[in-house]
Amino acid sequence: MAQAIDLPRNEDGIATALGILKQQFGDRFHTGQAMLDQHAHTTTWIRPQAPDAVVFPASTQEVSEIVKVCATHQVPVIPFGTGTSLEGHVNAPAGGVSVDLSQMNKVLAVHAEDLDCVVQPGVTRNQLNTHLRDRGLFFPIDPGADASLGGMASTRASGTNAVRYGTMKDNVLALEAVMPDGRVIRTAQRAKKTSAGYDLTRLLVGSEGTLGLITEITLKLQGIPEAIQAARMSFPSIDAACQAVMTTIQYGIPVARIELLDELNVRAANAYAGLDLPETPLLLLEFHGTENGVAEQAELFGAIAEDVGGTDFATTATAEERNKLWKARHDLYWATLQLRPGAHGISTDVCVPISRLADAVTGAQAKAEELDLLAPIVGHVGDGNFHSLVLIDMEDADEIARAETFTAFLADEAIRMEGTCTGEHGIGQGKMPYLIKELGAATEYMAAIKGALDPQGIMNPGKIFGPLR
Amino acid sequence: MAQAIDLPRNEDGIATALGILKQQFGDRFHTGQAMLDQHAHTTTWIRPQAPDAVVFPASTQEVSEIVKVCATHQVPVIPFGTGTSLEGHVNAPAGGVSVDLSQMNKVLAVHAEDLDCVVQPGVTRNQLNTHLRDRGLFFPIDPGADASLGGMASTRASGTNAVRYGTMKDNVLALEAVMPDGRVIRTAQRAKKTSAGYDLTRLLVGSEGTLGLITEITLKLQGIPEAIQAARMSFPSIDAACQAVMTTIQYGIPVARIELLDELNVRAANAYAGLDLPETPLLLLEFHGTENGVAEQAELFGAIAEDVGGTDFATTATAEERNKLWKARHDLYWATLQLRPGAHGISTDVCVPISRLADAVTGAQAKAEELDLLAPIVGHVGDGNFHSLVLIDMEDADEIARAETFTAFLADEAIRMEGTCTGEHGIGQGKMPYLIKELGAATEYMAAIKGALDPQGIMNPGKIFGPLR
Repeated sequence: MAQAIDLPRNEDGIATALGILKQQFGDRFHTGQAMLDQHAHTTTWIRPQAPDAVVFPASTQEVSEIVKVCATHQVPVIPFGTGTSLEGHVNAPAGGVSVDLSQMNKVLAVHAEDLDCVVQPGVTRNQLNTHLRDRGLFFPIDPGADASLGGMASTRASGTNAVRYGTMKDNVLALEAVMPDGRVIRTAQRAKKTSAGYDLTRLLVGSEGTLGLITEITLKLQGIPEAIQAARMSFPSIDAACQAVMTTIQYGIPVARIELLDELNVRAANAYAGLDLPETPLLLLEFHGTENGVAEQAELFGAIAEDVGGTDFATTATAEERNKLWKARHDLYWATLQLRPGAHGISTDVCVPISRLADAVTGAQAKAEELDLLAPIVGHVGDGNFHSLVLIDMEDADEIARAETFTAFLADEAIRMEGTCTGEHGIGQGKMPYLIKELGAATEYMAAIKGALDPQGIMNPGKIFGPLR
Repeated sequence: MAQAIDLPRNEDGIATALGILKQQFGDRFHTGQAMLDQHAHTTTWIRPQAPDAVVFPASTQEVSEIVKVCATHQVPVIPFGTGTSLEGHVNAPAGGVSVDLSQMNKVLAVHAEDLDCVVQPGVTRNQLNTHLRDRGLFFPIDPGADASLGGMASTRASGTNAVRYGTMKDNVLALEAVMPDGRVIRTAQRAKKTSAGYDLTRLLVGSEGTLGLITEITLKLQGIPEAIQAARMSFPSIDAACQAVMTTIQYGIPVARIELLDELNVRAANAYAGLDLPETPLLLLEFHGTENGVAEQAELFGAIAEDVGGTDFATTATAEERNKLWKARHDLYWATLQLRPGAHGISTDVCVPISRLADAVTGAQAKAEELDLLAPIVGHVGDGNFHSLVLIDMEDADEIARAETFTAFLADEAIRMEGTCTGEHGIGQGKMPYLIKELGAATEYMAAIKGALDPQGIMNPGKIFGPLR
């Protein structure tokens, strides 16, 4: 857990800024230990590093005021959505102010004719979809957790629907952001495409709060499809399942979801959800389209998968059956934890070109076995993206060391296969060394951009760039 | 034509750099006037500003050497693809070296299983598609001209297929670029998605050569659809045609192309291509999918369009018919010029939220009439993007002034409607004042990025940011 390095603190600046913010925000300003600890909650193994204060702004103007105070006194600003990020993004290694955006949770506008909406950053994806349902619209990006849309934009999140609908970079049309000097900008208007200057929208998406604090998001929406059908199919091997995925994508079948569960995950799901699936690699799918369209997609997929040895093809007939299937998928985190009660689950994430997927997954399985680790694998495999949840005893230093060897192996292998050390979780504190391995000199130009926009280094310090930023 | 302002020249630096490059590049180094003029060819009304020399590098290493020489002597570097950009991007307002990438025209790799390829920047889109055809693959972005893929990436180009397949920002997976200090970076690997650090890929896409020179592009590819069907339908008014477009998009019909031609364009196409279309607003469409899928899409569209008064719905039965239809579309530039023989055509481009499209187009038509200008309108309307080709007598100063009033009106109106002053042509020299109107303070952060990556301001100076950059 060497990632969570403490950075030098500007004690005087912090004390001064806290005094000012306490005055300005009254009962929306907190320094109680429980509140601080809650805002340094990290969902993986990275050691928590609490901020010095938590502030709950209610408007862009208030966020701007907070950032201006922090800029004046050189105090770190750490944006906080729901705290579900996985690489230590909400930690405060140099202390500072956690800006909790949960009170900025309004859907500001829905433009149904334009298939877009404008939301505050604290709106969660489930909240938005509930808001949209009566309009026949939905927002497709589904990272699993009910994350805030500001957080999802900040980490360039994606998840199960990305194979069809893209990631946050493809679904954010424009952002309003408070920049490191406290000024407010809009990165674009609402046109579906633009060639007007540098793409600040996509520079801020995935910048993990290190360049500015997102205060408003214009999102693309989709019409709820006329028909949705889910399906599952079992395979004799990871190779066979990956071959089916690759051929499906090559044929241009517009699958909305195509998820791989390895044997361990299937066993966990059977036990946790009372299912009776063959305990071999499994693909879960979803098709969106017209009634005819989804039937055709399912049939085509079935034929492709049978050719490579797929069995037990089943489609869902009702929304209830479909929801049960996806609930089992979304509960896998809890289900796999039950494979080793008391263990801590460490989620890691890589993404490779789809032609390398079978090698990457089977290589990971072999490495886990070699290291004597329990590490079930699940993947958004249409994009070549997969996760391993390493189940470890956090009291066992040797096991922790082996788990670190394993996650390093995954990242190194993904990079070697022309993939990336993170498909959707981000760099945060956990993946900093791999970013440099992956992109080399390009990271120096990233740092130059950081230096130009945030010369004091106050925006979420110690993320992406390591201790010096 | 105030846009093409001459900038101060660094005569000593230019002389020194030219001497060195002449030594290094021999017969691939040119200073003949014809060659210089050809590299300042601008396809609209912006006054040509020739470079001092043209160099034809054959490799990334050679591009790096050119940029290093220019960086050492503070000499402008202007990348050149095919010269088809529309806002003065290839002009050299402070002189300098035009880097013609036409000899870097190799398709370096096609990864059919991963649906991607790696190309040099001088490869044109037609060249790539010819190369791919036997593999059953294609690259969908079609801006009309047979532009180079490096140029298309630099201007964030899109065109007729963008409504389904996105723009260059959605189809570039990774770039290799020579940065302003001459160093070579890769912005990403080949994974379909990544959360690894700042999105330098999309920062360089659309940066118009002002941040670095693209030397290699990794592109997403598509499988050639099982079935392709084109269609056309006539409408009693622009309003009716736009209503049909909006409903089609809202229903999620995955049209591959949906193009609007106004009355003037239809008249021009009839005359030029010997067609016999009703001289009312026309939509041209293309559907991609399975045989059943395209039939279903066409039927759904037909029903939607009939509801709003559409008539004369016709689908193509053969590839030959389809090609004839799209040839008529692609020849519109030449066809509309024949509406006023001898006139110069000035192409301008805006993009608005689709709910504002009818207002924007009819407003433009009314303004053209008020100004007594002939300005046919054609649009990639599924995205809310449309063009006007203003036909003017370049000897008539008053007419030029009225045309400038007209293009300013279009940009201002688009911005007022929450759209953009350019959907796909870029800012270049022609749209600089509108960028600031559209994005205000955000442009200062763009300039900060420019300053950080190119502190000497040598990369394509006088573009995007105005005379000072």
